Amino acid sequence: MDIREIISNIQPVKQEFSEGAQKRLNNLTKPIGSLGRLEEFARRLVAIYENEMPDVPTKAIFTFAGDPGVAGEGVSAYPKEVTRQMVFNFLRGGAGINVLARHAGAEVVIVDIGVNGTFDGVRGLVSKKVVSGTKNMRKGPAMMKDEAIQCIGVGIELANDYAKKGYRLFGTGEMGIGNTTPSSAIAAVLTCRSVSEVTGRGTGISDDALRNKIMVIEDAISLNKPNPPDPVDVLAKVGGAEIGGIAGLVIGAAANGIPVVIDGFISTAGALIAYSLEPKTKDYLFAAHISQEIGHRAMLDKMRLRPILDLDLRLGEGTGAALAMLIIEAGLKIYREMATFGEAGVSNTSTGKG
Amino acid sequence: MDIREIISNIQPVKQEFSEGAQKRLNNLTKPIGSLGRLEEFARRLVAIYENEMPDVPTKAIFTFAGDPGVAGEGVSAYPKEVTRQMVFNFLRGGAGINVLARHAGAEVVIVDIGVNGTFDGVRGLVSKKVVSGTKNMRKGPAMMKDEAIQCIGVGIELANDYAKKGYRLFGTGEMGIGNTTPSSAIAAVLTCRSVSEVTGRGTGISDDALRNKIMVIEDAISLNKPNPPDPVDVLAKVGGAEIGGIAGLVIGAAANGIPVVIDGFISTAGALIAYSLEPKTKDYLFAAHISQEIGHRAMLDKMRLRPILDLDLRLGEGTGAALAMLIIEAGLKIYREMATFGEAGVSNTSTGKG
Repeated sequence: MDIREIISNIQPVKQEFSEGAQKRLNNLTKPIGSLGRLEEFARRLVAIYENEMPDVPTKAIFTFAGDPGVAGEGVSAYPKEVTRQMVFNFLRGGAGINVLARHAGAEVVIVDIGVNGTFDGVRGLVSKKVVSGTKNMRKGPAMMKDEAIQCIGVGIELANDYAKKGYRLFGTGEMGIGNTTPSSAIAAVLTCRSVSEVTGRGTGISDDALRNKIMVIEDAISLNKPNPPDPVDVLAKVGGAEIGGIAGLVIGAAANGIPVVIDGFISTAGALIAYSLEPKTKDYLFAAHISQEIGHRAMLDKMRLRPILDLDLRLGEGTGAALAMLIIEAGLKIYREMATFGEAGVSNTSTGKG
Repeated sequence: MDIREIISNIQPVKQEFSEGAQKRLNNLTKPIGSLGRLEEFARRLVAIYENEMPDVPTKAIFTFAGDPGVAGEGVSAYPKEVTRQMVFNFLRGGAGINVLARHAGAEVVIVDIGVNGTFDGVRGLVSKKVVSGTKNMRKGPAMMKDEAIQCIGVGIELANDYAKKGYRLFGTGEMGIGNTTPSSAIAAVLTCRSVSEVTGRGTGISDDALRNKIMVIEDAISLNKPNPPDPVDVLAKVGGAEIGGIAGLVIGAAANGIPVVIDGFISTAGALIAYSLEPKTKDYLFAAHISQEIGHRAMLDKMRLRPILDLDLRLGEGTGAALAMLIIEAGLKIYREMATFGEAGVSNTSTGKG
């Protein structure tokens, strides 16, 4: 797969569709602009789909699972076996993402892109393993550059497949014990912040463990010297397989003209890799929520994305994306289903006073 | 109806149910506390229902319609006929609240509590008219005290009826051209702020009209002298029929042990009347969102309520409540449906490092 060629196919969305949508919104039985961000979401979907009256989309959330090698450095509150155990939990429908995706009417696609462990013939799992866990970035690059490219390729391929199947709204998610650590590294490198500004407690580590985590990331960056103008280099050296999958899904979504809801901190690190490769991807991105993880805001600001929800979430998996999909869809339904002033026989004449 | 007696039946929720719920939440397959406010919503519902495993509730949103007499003072961008026209739009399912309530799976109950105009035999409308529009509060009290009490009674009665029918989650909403004006008056009187601090553009009025609106409210307060320690006096003198209905619904919800999601600025004015009558109502209140209307924050702060959503909404009708219900319900589903560590075979042992 030639990633460069796919990226070159990404087009900015057409402003005229957005303007047409706002005209309709202004004629619905409500004061102009009074549905705030719901109107924004409707406008954006109309523009992305290039369709004046889009159907309510079929939705899929992609949860990429991978093990960061750096988990061995004591950066998480959980043992690394949990990544594989949680994959089984996802497949049985018992995890947070399963519950919230059911609530939102979205399908969950569980992708093994880099789990350290095998799943021979497990039903329901999408097997796209590029690495059996990444390497410990404190001791060298997490991945080879061609592995990072393969991870992006997996995301693009899934976007293509699910676009062909008729899905029209994507969400991202991930699972990987220790993966806030590479995400903080990416945040530091690509937003030009100090590591301590963008590194938080992940699953809930102590003060000592947080100080260690910051040191581990600083070591990894100074050892590997990731090159900010080369996002694939950053992904390979201090990123992770699941983060690469998310970057690829964002690129593939944009190339297919499909909106993509990015979940929290780790998903945003993936989206930031994609955005750094091609800023036009931004036209297709919706930021689900602002995470409790510090460092999330810096990445969203870098892409000038305003999060939809603020619910103190820090679970990942795609849980915030599932909830945000419900709100985005609400905007589209407003656009599709509300009566116009004319249809409803409601006066739309200003009193002249206001 | 003896409102005092009903209010005296309101009980604070029992903390032990909340603690029991958090124990279960801590044992679900996620880091402790990582679902943030979703966990808070689950805890609160368990405590309100006094049920360790509550069913997903049947939901109703009550949209109270009434005409404030002060609308004649040029405080709205729309002519006052729009209140009645919008009631027909509600009944035909074409308004914002209809779309969002369908999206959330909630029933919409349209209540004529004070519309200036008749609806003889119109199907689907709940006729509980107390006044045919309130009086112009710039020239005297908006209602007589017994009318204000009747409005509260209407809300209580509806809460009782829908509790009996099996509804277990209520939302509030309203329609009334000009009704941000009495709401700002209530906000000023009950939060001890200046009128200009809590008065905004409502449906979207000009700078001149906003200055006029502030003056109208200041005049109404100085003429009528509403007495803050007597919330029914405040409701009667500078409030409105639909605001009274909302206050009653909140009281009735709390008396029946049913959680109630308050919508935006006007609904919060109604909730603040109820809260001022009996602060224990707070245990049953969920604040749907923070409105674009300035003055909303002051009322939420007075009740120490943190809004669930921030989507720049300023439509009212119950639209924010419908969306927030989806998020609250997500919290309950997490609580009900997620697997525990034991059920899923996922390790819940700290590595000792974090």
